Amino acid sequence: MAPSAEKKLTGLVAATFTPFTPQGEVNLAEIGPYIDYLIEKQGVHGIFVNGTTGESMSLTVAERKILAEDWCQKARGKLDQVIVHVGCMSLKDAKELAGHAAQIGADAIAVMAPFFFKPRTADALRSFLQEVASAAPNLPFYYYHIPAVTGVNVPVRDVLEGVEELIPSFRGVKFSGIDLMDFGQCVSDSPPHWSFLYGMDEQLLAALAMGADGAVGSTYNYAGCHFNKLISAFKEGHVVQARKIQFKMQELLSYAMKLGFDVGVNKQLMNELSGLSLGPPRLPVTPCPFAHALLIVKKYHHVFTDS
Amino acid sequence: MAPSAEKKLTGLVAATFTPFTPQGEVNLAEIGPYIDYLIEKQGVHGIFVNGTTGESMSLTVAERKILAEDWCQKARGKLDQVIVHVGCMSLKDAKELAGHAAQIGADAIAVMAPFFFKPRTADALRSFLQEVASAAPNLPFYYYHIPAVTGVNVPVRDVLEGVEELIPSFRGVKFSGIDLMDFGQCVSDSPPHWSFLYGMDEQLLAALAMGADGAVGSTYNYAGCHFNKLISAFKEGHVVQARKIQFKMQELLSYAMKLGFDVGVNKQLMNELSGLSLGPPRLPVTPCPFAHALLIVKKYHHVFTDS
Amino acid sequence: MAPSAEKKLTGLVAATFTPFTPQGEVNLAEIGPYIDYLIEKQGVHGIFVNGTTGESMSLTVAERKILAEDWCQKARGKLDQVIVHVGCMSLKDAKELAGHAAQIGADAIAVMAPFFFKPRTADALRSFLQEVASAAPNLPFYYYHIPAVTGVNVPVRDVLEGVEELIPSFRGVKFSGIDLMDFGQCVSDSPPHWSFLYGMDEQLLAALAMGADGAVGSTYNYAGCHFNKLISAFKEGHVVQARKIQFKMQELLSYAMKLGFDVGVNKQLMNELSGLSLGPPRLPVTPCPFAHALLIVKKYHHVFTDS
Amino acid sequence: MAPSAEKKLTGLVAATFTPFTPQGEVNLAEIGPYIDYLIEKQGVHGIFVNGTTGESMSLTVAERKILAEDWCQKARGKLDQVIVHVGCMSLKDAKELAGHAAQIGADAIAVMAPFFFKPRTADALRSFLQEVASAAPNLPFYYYHIPAVTGVNVPVRDVLEGVEELIPSFRGVKFSGIDLMDFGQCVSDSPPHWSFLYGMDEQLLAALAMGADGAVGSTYNYAGCHFNKLISAFKEGHVVQARKIQFKMQELLSYAMKLGFDVGVNKQLMNELSGLSLGPPRLPVTPCPFAHALLIVKKYHHVFTDS
Repeated sequence: MAPSAEKKLTGLVAATFTPFTPQGEVNLAEIGPYIDYLIEKQGVHGIFVNGTTGESMSLTVAERKILAEDWCQKARGKLDQVIVHVGCMSLKDAKELAGHAAQIGADAIAVMAPFFFKPRTADALRSFLQEVASAAPNLPFYYYHIPAVTGVNVPVRDVLEGVEELIPSFRGVKFSGIDLMDFGQCVSDSPPHWSFLYGMDEQLLAALAMGADGAVGSTYNYAGCHFNKLISAFKEGHVVQARKIQFKMQELLSYAMKLGFDVGVNKQLMNELSGLSLGPPRLPVTPCPFAHALLIVKKYHHVFTDS
Repeated sequence: MAPSAEKKLTGLVAATFTPFTPQGEVNLAEIGPYIDYLIEKQGVHGIFVNGTTGESMSLTVAERKILAEDWCQKARGKLDQVIVHVGCMSLKDAKELAGHAAQIGADAIAVMAPFFFKPRTADALRSFLQEVASAAPNLPFYYYHIPAVTGVNVPVRDVLEGVEELIPSFRGVKFSGIDLMDFGQCVSDSPPHWSFLYGMDEQLLAALAMGADGAVGSTYNYAGCHFNKLISAFKEGHVVQARKIQFKMQELLSYAMKLGFDVGVNKQLMNELSGLSLGPPRLPVTPCPFAHALLIVKKYHHVFTDS
Repeated sequence: MAPSAEKKLTGLVAATFTPFTPQGEVNLAEIGPYIDYLIEKQGVHGIFVNGTTGESMSLTVAERKILAEDWCQKARGKLDQVIVHVGCMSLKDAKELAGHAAQIGADAIAVMAPFFFKPRTADALRSFLQEVASAAPNLPFYYYHIPAVTGVNVPVRDVLEGVEELIPSFRGVKFSGIDLMDFGQCVSDSPPHWSFLYGMDEQLLAALAMGADGAVGSTYNYAGCHFNKLISAFKEGHVVQARKIQFKMQELLSYAMKLGFDVGVNKQLMNELSGLSLGPPRLPVTPCPFAHALLIVKKYHHVFTDS
Repeated sequence: MAPSAEKKLTGLVAATFTPFTPQGEVNLAEIGPYIDYLIEKQGVHGIFVNGTTGESMSLTVAERKILAEDWCQKARGKLDQVIVHVGCMSLKDAKELAGHAAQIGADAIAVMAPFFFKPRTADALRSFLQEVASAAPNLPFYYYHIPAVTGVNVPVRDVLEGVEELIPSFRGVKFSGIDLMDFGQCVSDSPPHWSFLYGMDEQLLAALAMGADGAVGSTYNYAGCHFNKLISAFKEGHVVQARKIQFKMQELLSYAMKLGFDVGVNKQLMNELSGLSLGPPRLPVTPCPFAHALLIVKKYHHVFTDS
């Protein structure tokens, strides 16, 4: 039986980092405090685990299971939504992870396009997604579109054609791209129980104007409190106020990008801003030079304290 | 003396097609009726001539002069703004055209990045722009950013750094790109007398949310009347209403793109919708199959009549 | 102890397909006949298993181990070289596979660049490779460069700088790119005990002229007999004769590409030409339309029979 | 009447720089000494004027005519071949230049693909080329393929299909790309009176192996003497000797590229090595820092003197 169509996903979802020990092993002990931090300091009530920010592709299947399980367990009763990303190059692994997500009580699963052999048509991509979804037919299913990383540029609107017939549990898209014509057409042509979660934090306001239901991103880990204000301002018709917050975030990210913003830098930034100990990234991501992280932290405080 | 900073450019600007005879020669006779059509049927009061839509790169320097002069003369007293694009591969030609634009009473000039030898730094690009601007120091100057065509991806925010010291007549940007972080930072950091005119018609609403002052595009030739409503709705806080119009336009353009939308198709569409005789495009653009144009016309009526 | 520097790899190496049952499960039974076919019909005495052609990224770690072990065992005493590709997105998995390759008696290992988080510098890439190599320090190590698929464009000559100090077992490169300046510089600056194996079958002759020691590719599975003649002709100074064979191969591949040449088509072509039962590909690669494979088979016979 | 098919173009052709005064105006006085230098010091007997190296896109049509005329006049009786590049964004300008080339006694014309509106099919590209060629029907016509600059990636083999029926004066291709499968198929399928001139100096040897008839490039201005030896060695079957020279050139170019090799650097390098006064480049190309040119000169002498 397909999942209920009633609980539509909205608002901010943090794409969580994977906590590592200083030696680079999975560190479950930080997950509880991490969840509390998101709720108490950021006002964020949804998480997207084992995604890009969570370095899922650098984890083994066993590690991904342990992490998913721990996140789900500790989030229970605290968070509204735990979406587990189960995408893999290997369809077998992805199905294994999807089935596991169902067992551990995840609220939903998400899958990115495989990107070694890149599907060249919407049909091929849908077939792959359908196979994964079939291993967890009762969990809401989200397609995770991130073309700049995967190189898979099949328009999402084409992927959505007839998708609910193939995947009855289909419930929406995490859209991490900047083609807002494609995004707009997805929103425009879709049933109301699907959610479109935008994934480019630096231009969320533009996607809200285009009809985004919510957002999934890494910066909501430490700037969710500001983005919640942005969303509220937008909803209340105060576009100028929302824009002001968006511009602050762009200033911060632009500064960070000049210093080489990647998951390693981002993770170190989160460590500094949250006080959590999420450890270093794993190779091939290299650790962030300490001085860089401090400069970005300083910029963060400068940007969001002045007003 | 630099131009007055008071007359800030806003609203819709049509990027005009160049009228040709059936034999492919410049056809000045259509320019008068074209201007009337824009005013009366589309409510558009600004034009951008000899740009991408105007096939400027396929024209000789002599043809560009004749056209610019005729547009300026016939627009006088009728349109608010005639911006003449004077960008060329050859700096000498661009300066020649800039000086000419000043003589014939253009309201402003615009220049795209040269794209055979692509400037690799903001410095190199600014030097080129500065040289062109120096040939028409009293005309408001706009940088025309269209990276998908030129392949010049220097962030506009970098181009803007210190630009008014080099080019006192600098007044803004025609931004035909989809990087709304770059766009947002331009808007955020710029003096109030500059104008940011967005150039991707299919996602204008997103740019308005980010603070666009106006728009320059080819579809405003025949859908300006609808976009004027979009802009009004947005200004009055009716985002849902604005989005509805934007979605219609996306539906139309998406349909056209599947049929191979290019300047040739676009020109034929304009011919059909306006009743003007703008002729075929010039090689290397090939004429649009007649049947394709008719299908798109039909779609246009379908999209904008239903509601 | 680093592996002996004496056994330099040369000649043709077939990048093997992974045999599947019609249901898509690993089919070890075909491996023995496959090896015999390569030796007897193609004159090929080296194999590269679990690479791109072998759909390694679509396999689980467990499947890759079973396959590697079976190939090594059945090749013993028959083939000169079994190179096991152990590259993975996850460093942990890659190390696991490298250690396993050492245990099962592989002759060498190869690793492609990770490509979700793409190393942006030679340093970052070398660090990743070094970690994998450390799990099998006695096996000759090859870097597998395939930029069109991975999107990792770090010049190989930069990767090679100082690499033998970090990886004492380093022995060469499988170079699947068309930048022959980069290739030439690798060959030019490298110690004589390294091997440069070219990976673009359609232009092997060009790489031989530039000093390639050998070749690894998928078409050597079924056209190795012809490429052996090409190599011999080149070595004996008969460039025109070698070119003639290369042109035939280009004619075949060009024809196949127009029909959508990918691993699925390639596998079906191998099935038809060899009489082996290697099964279909696995999703996200989709099976080849039967008629397409037959057309390419026909072309193969036409190209290589006429002369 | 189409040009004679007998005089097939082979050997080295220098893509000449355009001599400017220190103030950036065309400097005809250097053309005579330039021609003598090519003959006497480099052993180069063919030139390709107003091409990429000649900064043609930065020149006005009038300047291109004056230059073409002066090169043709001064080359008479001295050089075997003057090929005038007449490609332009504007078809009208290109036809004007083609007609002019015929009047001034050029030996051949060449045309690159227009690249603002990029032809998407071989048909559209051929139509453009045909129109230009029709203005000089008695001059041998070469298509100039340089996809990395123009962004026009139509395979040359497709452009060649039926081209001699449309353009009876068609005589070959200047192929400045690294896709040697496309190159090989052109060579393989073409009549013997066509010439394939390779344009990537850094890998000329590879193209010779594939059947190139000759080469057009900028480095033949100052390293033609070495490339003549490379070609001779290749023809006599001494591939190892030819490779040695190719590797030297790769070493030089790789070094230059790290310092930002472009037409400006290249021109300054020519000034230093030849003793000619070709002046600076024109914007948007910026002048080369003096120190960079000297470093590359030093490298040149180091590379080609040792051995």
